[in-house]
Amino acid sequence: MSDRKPSNLDIANEEAFRRMTSADPVLVDILPAREVVPGMNKRIVLTSGPALAWREYEGGQRQGIIGGVIYEGWASNADEAVALLDSGEVAVGACQDHSCVGSLAGIYTPSMPVFVVEDRASGQRAFCNMYEGKSRKRLNYGIYDDVVRDQLKLVEYVLAPTIAAAVREMGGVPLKPIMIRSLNMGDELHSRNTAASLLFARELFPSFLRLYGELGEAVQKTIELLTEDNYFFLRLSMASSKVAADLAHGVEGSSLVTAMAFNCKEFAIRVSGIDGWIRGPHAAVEAKLFDGHDESEITWMGGESPITETIGLGGFAQAGAPTLQAYQGGSYAAMMERNESLYRITHGENPDFKLAVFAYRGTPTGIDVFRVLEERVLPVMDIGIAGKGGGQIGAGIVSAPVECFQKAAALYKELYPQ
Amino acid sequence: MSDRKPSNLDIANEEAFRRMTSADPVLVDILPAREVVPGMNKRIVLTSGPALAWREYEGGQRQGIIGGVIYEGWASNADEAVALLDSGEVAVGACQDHSCVGSLAGIYTPSMPVFVVEDRASGQRAFCNMYEGKSRKRLNYGIYDDVVRDQLKLVEYVLAPTIAAAVREMGGVPLKPIMIRSLNMGDELHSRNTAASLLFARELFPSFLRLYGELGEAVQKTIELLTEDNYFFLRLSMASSKVAADLAHGVEGSSLVTAMAFNCKEFAIRVSGIDGWIRGPHAAVEAKLFDGHDESEITWMGGESPITETIGLGGFAQAGAPTLQAYQGGSYAAMMERNESLYRITHGENPDFKLAVFAYRGTPTGIDVFRVLEERVLPVMDIGIAGKGGGQIGAGIVSAPVECFQKAAALYKELYPQ
Repeated sequence: MSDRKPSNLDIANEEAFRRMTSADPVLVDILPAREVVPGMNKRIVLTSGPALAWREYEGGQRQGIIGGVIYEGWASNADEAVALLDSGEVAVGACQDHSCVGSLAGIYTPSMPVFVVEDRASGQRAFCNMYEGKSRKRLNYGIYDDVVRDQLKLVEYVLAPTIAAAVREMGGVPLKPIMIRSLNMGDELHSRNTAASLLFARELFPSFLRLYGELGEAVQKTIELLTEDNYFFLRLSMASSKVAADLAHGVEGSSLVTAMAFNCKEFAIRVSGIDGWIRGPHAAVEAKLFDGHDESEITWMGGESPITETIGLGGFAQAGAPTLQAYQGGSYAAMMERNESLYRITHGENPDFKLAVFAYRGTPTGIDVFRVLEERVLPVMDIGIAGKGGGQIGAGIVSAPVECFQKAAALYKELYPQ
Repeated sequence: MSDRKPSNLDIANEEAFRRMTSADPVLVDILPAREVVPGMNKRIVLTSGPALAWREYEGGQRQGIIGGVIYEGWASNADEAVALLDSGEVAVGACQDHSCVGSLAGIYTPSMPVFVVEDRASGQRAFCNMYEGKSRKRLNYGIYDDVVRDQLKLVEYVLAPTIAAAVREMGGVPLKPIMIRSLNMGDELHSRNTAASLLFARELFPSFLRLYGELGEAVQKTIELLTEDNYFFLRLSMASSKVAADLAHGVEGSSLVTAMAFNCKEFAIRVSGIDGWIRGPHAAVEAKLFDGHDESEITWMGGESPITETIGLGGFAQAGAPTLQAYQGGSYAAMMERNESLYRITHGENPDFKLAVFAYRGTPTGIDVFRVLEERVLPVMDIGIAGKGGGQIGAGIVSAPVECFQKAAALYKELYPQ
């Protein structure tokens, strides 16, 4: 036992850590965003990262927003959409200001179905829209065309209502047990979600059987979409992570990170005891690109999936996902070492998310701004890489920029003078 | 390039390795043993390991055989069953003499449904009966009572016909793709089959939906049994392994092992270029026992699941299954090291079964009798541990006895003098 009295910082961080790790996310429904997301029952498009003025969005992120306006039928082409956005007749919002969390550009429009994920004890909710399918061309990667529209319609008219019917029949699907199991089946729940997607599908099987007489082919198609690739569960992992991170946000005096995200212009973090986003330059990336692409094509069009790393998943659990070597490059030994180094910058070990390869040690959880600076270890994130022409061109590992942590530390010292 | 001319031994082993690794097992049907297993359309009980005379079977293996006689309704109690076995009115056979492969005591009776697994190119077939369920008391662990009987009846009347209907509707289920995927989802396909069981259930699910109207609750129950634990796929892994090993058997001049198995009295191996079993003493075991049990209870009642290790799975793929630490003891570092050491005694690296944690190196495959002796590395097997009172009391890692390899080398030199 140490005689040292815990400081206010220790006490605050322990409280934020406790809130973060006690979250018990349950998928309670799937509804159109306008019916359930605060502030979405109007002409608005949400996009990833700290808010920018509409005119500041560029590249794929701008294209994604324009695509969202057309998808809603508010405009029939890009020029009309831009006019509506320029005039403010269609608003642009930041996902996390609406309890949403965006994958890549993270385009949300009012008609899009969203997962409603709730921590039942506290009632804390977060929302995430749904995976568009395995095509590399997707709205959230800054592309909108007939193929992308058809994928989104399939999600809206087939996938979402079928899963929603099962979820309602079941009275909700607890997500944490699935997440815990999948971490020892090769997932880290950011860039790899194969086992979790399968486990989620399996949870729904009994209900799908009962619904088959009524819904028929929609059920067959849904099973196919749920399990055809590695990604379906990502959006549930993100919404679960957002619930946990938001529960930990707002603890006075806490220096734990409660979000990491970026838009086309900047990377940013949120810190529990500090209001607002703390912005910095873009992150550094080690990418592995799909054949036929090169580094000059890499672009930033937003991304909030690092909410998973924020609560001890993704890069913070990558030792559990050795197959990511093939997807994002690097050796397994390097992945183990990188994962291990993150214990130096986190408040604690996750009581639920455990890694068999580390003798069932809990994943490093709760990034502490001060430890990042003291240890000179930057948080790492497993991310998909977007190309300037739109679409996914690869995957890789990103390190958060030190500037965000330096700014956060300075802000913290202003807010909480010793 | 080496100038060394390959020896006859090299050529023969390369051929056996090629046959073993080219097997493409497909589940083609599930039928009662009497309808499909050679020599089973009579009063016979099959059990694991090299054949013994009925009177030589003891302990749990003897109890299992007696249980099989009662299960078939040939006797109404143990005394009547023993009388039938003593008089020869009920025969006792060795599983592998009938293209079957036994889990633990491996009790097969004519009415029991068996998986029919076929290599379609060659028509080579193997059979395996089905997992009895997650109760620690099972016929294959030497116990027969009302509970065990009810489990077996559930398998016979619900599980087997439901899966069979789906398999027939699908025109067969290729098993190798499931096995390949599961190795990078935490399975080694002997003591851990969680992902493979889930992947198999997912393959059948579209067919289950179509059959639901006709079969109703049987489908719900089947989904539950298929995924409630880690073991369902083991019997498919065993039958697939048996097909591959049998394809590799009988190559003149080959010193590769084509089976490892034991009965209550002895451990034994088969070698491709040598007829018959080569018998030795029992294997050494490092066990982790369930709470409330101790080492004095450990007993041998037969086991042929090491057919999986024979073709590069189980202990030969345990680096892919870190969670086995919790089940069978030992550290993950020790598992990685042990797995790595097996490359020294195997002919080659599996072209299909690959381990991400070893940078996608193929699993060590094709145990060479001579390398085992030269390198002094014994094949290891992941096994379930039976207790003297019957039932499973734990799990562990077994090393094959060196005597079998010494005898095999001597026999080989007699058969193939230089």
